[in-house]
Amino acid sequence: MRHVIAILLQNEAGALTRVTGLISARGYNIESLSVAPTNDATVSRVTLVTIGSDAVLVAVEDMTSGDHLARELLLVKLRIPAEHIDSAGALVRRAAGKVLSASPSSYIVELASTEFEIGEFIANISAFGEIIEVVRSGVLGMARSDPRLHVSNNL
Amino acid sequence: MRHVIAILLQNEAGALTRVTGLISARGYNIESLSVAPTNDATVSRVTLVTIGSDAVLVAVEDMTSGDHLARELLLVKLRIPAEHIDSAGALVRRAAGKVLSASPSSYIVELASTEFEIGEFIANISAFGEIIEVVRSGVLGMARSDPRLHVSNNL
Repeated sequence: MRHVIAILLQNEAGALTRVTGLISARGYNIESLSVAPTNDATVSRVTLVTIGSDAVLVAVEDMTSGDHLARELLLVKLRIPAEHIDSAGALVRRAAGKVLSASPSSYIVELASTEFEIGEFIANISAFGEIIEVVRSGVLGMARSDPRLHVSNNL
Repeated sequence: MRHVIAILLQNEAGALTRVTGLISARGYNIESLSVAPTNDATVSRVTLVTIGSDAVLVAVEDMTSGDHLARELLLVKLRIPAEHIDSAGALVRRAAGKVLSASPSSYIVELASTEFEIGEFIANISAFGEIIEVVRSGVLGMARSDPRLHVSNNL
């Protein structure tokens, strides 16, 4: 089963490696992972997407079953022939994305959306040119209600 | 020195752990990291921000010195008193963010921007209510020109 997991980590060297090691040692693949500072300077927050049984998930918040938001950031760079630039721009506007560079040789779009819509967007914009580079943040998860997540020292 | 690093990884169990282990074993702290699939199903792309000397950086793209975009996704949840909801909404619009939930007890904003502007936004919106939860993707980096980055088997 596919899980979206959130973990709060104390900021210390090796903490992230212990988390990823814990998961991969059980043979589960990490599909995406993001980690960044929170508003507490001593704590970082990890969101990861993995596929596995429920047994591995200890002392973390599994947001798969709750009512949560799952959003992702995409940067995509394409070569787009000049005659297709306007059509590509219209697609970006419809998706509520942003053109960060409008050069035909390096046309860069930013889009924050759901994982599914980002996949659709990549497929649709590839009709207008050649994809050079794709960078995705991986899924960020947040429960719609109050967080149940607190710092754990068990990892 | 602070580095923004991009790495392409073959999708195999443990590859991410080797990367984070390589960095933390040298005592460097990972400030943020994101990893997600690319348009090549066998390859994932990592962007990480770390502080350290140049010596550790082998077979990866260090985008610190080049002309690159560095963008990040923020989800922030606040409790905002009803009388401040309109002011908060105006701030979100000025920042080109998106209100994902407008409930006073769980007001959730999405913002894709630079790391600096995200920090400013968090400071500004906290004037209107209490921050409950912050989730950031970490920095995504992309060179403005063609990518020099290719898959390495050296990690």
